[in-house]
Amino acid sequence: MNPSRTVAELKELRDLTGDENGAQRVAFTPVWSKAREFLKSKLAGLPVETHDDAAGNFWATLPGRSAKALLIGGHIDSVPDGGWLDGCLNTLAGVEILRRIAGEYDGCPPVTVRLVDWADEEGARFGKSLFGSSACAGTLDMGEAANLRDRDGIALPDALRAVGIEFEKVKESGIERANAAAYQELHIEQGPVLLDKGLVLGTVLGTFGVQRHAITFRGQAAHSGSTPMNRRRDAFLAAAKMGPEIYKIAGRHGGVCTIGSCTTQPGIVTSVVADCRITLDQRHLDAPALASMLADAREAASKFAGECGVSVEWERLWQIDPILFHPDLIGLCDEAAGEVCGASHRMPSGPLHDAAEVSRSGIPTVMMFVQSLHGISHNKIEDTREEHIEAAVRAFDRLASKLMDWIARLPQDFKGVAPLHGRKPARDQGQ
Amino acid sequence: MNPSRTVAELKELRDLTGDENGAQRVAFTPVWSKAREFLKSKLAGLPVETHDDAAGNFWATLPGRSAKALLIGGHIDSVPDGGWLDGCLNTLAGVEILRRIAGEYDGCPPVTVRLVDWADEEGARFGKSLFGSSACAGTLDMGEAANLRDRDGIALPDALRAVGIEFEKVKESGIERANAAAYQELHIEQGPVLLDKGLVLGTVLGTFGVQRHAITFRGQAAHSGSTPMNRRRDAFLAAAKMGPEIYKIAGRHGGVCTIGSCTTQPGIVTSVVADCRITLDQRHLDAPALASMLADAREAASKFAGECGVSVEWERLWQIDPILFHPDLIGLCDEAAGEVCGASHRMPSGPLHDAAEVSRSGIPTVMMFVQSLHGISHNKIEDTREEHIEAAVRAFDRLASKLMDWIARLPQDFKGVAPLHGRKPARDQGQ
Repeated sequence: MNPSRTVAELKELRDLTGDENGAQRVAFTPVWSKAREFLKSKLAGLPVETHDDAAGNFWATLPGRSAKALLIGGHIDSVPDGGWLDGCLNTLAGVEILRRIAGEYDGCPPVTVRLVDWADEEGARFGKSLFGSSACAGTLDMGEAANLRDRDGIALPDALRAVGIEFEKVKESGIERANAAAYQELHIEQGPVLLDKGLVLGTVLGTFGVQRHAITFRGQAAHSGSTPMNRRRDAFLAAAKMGPEIYKIAGRHGGVCTIGSCTTQPGIVTSVVADCRITLDQRHLDAPALASMLADAREAASKFAGECGVSVEWERLWQIDPILFHPDLIGLCDEAAGEVCGASHRMPSGPLHDAAEVSRSGIPTVMMFVQSLHGISHNKIEDTREEHIEAAVRAFDRLASKLMDWIARLPQDFKGVAPLHGRKPARDQGQ
Repeated sequence: MNPSRTVAELKELRDLTGDENGAQRVAFTPVWSKAREFLKSKLAGLPVETHDDAAGNFWATLPGRSAKALLIGGHIDSVPDGGWLDGCLNTLAGVEILRRIAGEYDGCPPVTVRLVDWADEEGARFGKSLFGSSACAGTLDMGEAANLRDRDGIALPDALRAVGIEFEKVKESGIERANAAAYQELHIEQGPVLLDKGLVLGTVLGTFGVQRHAITFRGQAAHSGSTPMNRRRDAFLAAAKMGPEIYKIAGRHGGVCTIGSCTTQPGIVTSVVADCRITLDQRHLDAPALASMLADAREAASKFAGECGVSVEWERLWQIDPILFHPDLIGLCDEAAGEVCGASHRMPSGPLHDAAEVSRSGIPTVMMFVQSLHGISHNKIEDTREEHIEAAVRAFDRLASKLMDWIARLPQDFKGVAPLHGRKPARDQGQ
């Protein structure tokens, strides 16, 4: 295998589908289609069958002696003004692995190996991330998705039709899960943990569960000059007390908590704040710990409301349970990373990924992270050192070999997971 | 004198110029003109000379044996959806006092007594309060005022022309200050201090100095899921720490501090806040204490910025020095209030009033406050008990008598204050 070819192909893709503001491969747009054509061109000459499924996911299948399949996933779509690695590193690393396996086994490996390029992982245009993987997993909320519109008012079903996808049939892509025995995905970390630890690779334990709420404190507008301090019912004061408190809560339970926005009414310089609304995003890999973080935040908000003489209202914006990856696969990923880089770090993923949808559909799943510089993604400054990209491709390829062996050792009667229908979907509002 | 007539006239004015949402006497509008006509009709039959000055202030003069004049001030304009007492209580109490004095002295009191109804105290339409009184005081910033526009894009000079006022000449109203020896103004408190103390009347020591700033903390946007708590540069956290801190600062120095608005960028649920802007309004009657409050806030903001790894920028929005009323007049106001209600409370005024402009133009000035219910003004629920209104009119009348005596005792060569031109104006952004 040739990891430096992957770096070269990533640069080629960047030149083809990016501009001075970054990657522009927004799903279901002409630039995205161009990226897909680029991907297909890189597979030409390999003994793979290719097709788009009912949800617009692209599949390249290298048939093996066994129908049991290893899936290697990525997404070639990006946010607008995105980074050069987010999603496409995964896809192009998969291409290089298909090349290696096809060559090594003379076109017929012991188990089937499939590359999948998920459609619209980012949700940049319609605000619904993990579209293709959730359709395939059967967890997509069809009623919600039918009503999504982009900023120009175009409905998701119409945008899909324009690229040849029939909205009502997208869950038929679930058939692709037949015989799927394991799923692996590589991704840039999008955070600073590996950078801080001086490590190149991480093994992802799963994706955080998320509790996302809006908290509104309601007090009383009052003149900033004529209202004594002890007579105020100051909604901003109560909200402000939540600022340091969420750091204590996150520290106590080992998760993360974020107040991402704060709005004030009437919001004028001469009035005490009557209403203050903050958003609170809480994440943890452990479901009971996540529940405790939420309970602590509720208790703190009530306490601060009482101290400030205001009321407090909670509104749930979104929630998803933690999704844990497969313990066997986590161990094998650790091994692969260790063999290439000497050490690996086991860590949760804060952002969601297609791997989360694959995992909750029942397919044994693992992800590998490679170090991000700056800890920044969704931005043109997103970057990873080239030698780290190459190490990641090499370790990811070793992981593929280990998973093929693992699949080969599965019981003879393994038929893959059954297509899943009717699971309760989580409402999605971004990663 | 008949204070119940003042209550009846206030109700008459409410019916004439209010609706179900409150008072609608916005300056320079037809409803305001109607209120002015109502005021003039109440003066018909009194031996007073009336005219509008160059700034649209209305004057009614009861000439006395001495040209030295007691001024009694108020404003009949209101904010949109305003209260039934704010400003017009002052004016109509002045009408009742003119009646009493004209009757008592058979049309010629020992000193001249003048009622002034200031134009556009509220600044509701153009965002510039104390228009008429600052024009008369000579402190109006002509360049700034020339560029003020209402929400329909109409410039202040054009709106003035429509009611017969020539913008370039408004400071000629300063001539009205000739022979002015004392100024008294009655106002509802607009706060809860007298209500809390169970007192009807207060003697106002002066108006607070104000320091008004925007404070912007600048950190780094970062993914809410992938950024560890100890790696965040969270601008909201720094701003939030200011919330409780300003209460400590106000308590330490005895003034008031208000964070009236908070805005966040990018302001989305999935990102740590990069930029957070709050407004801080600080008020104190004592100039050094006000300066200390500002210094403490600056020090705290820098400390919190350091703790959170963010930077901090200050922008001055507006400032005005404290304006202290005349010590002799404060004593006489206390006496008058005490004679009618048994007790009075000496207190600063948080909001600005026309009296502040009069005082800083050099005319000995005092204000009397009457208790507000709810501590609410600029709202249709603004209210004061009728027996308290009547007590206030009675005490205000006694104050007029005391000030007439005080003026009569002034040196023979008193010529009033000279019209003031060219004083450095304070930029006004509301009361």
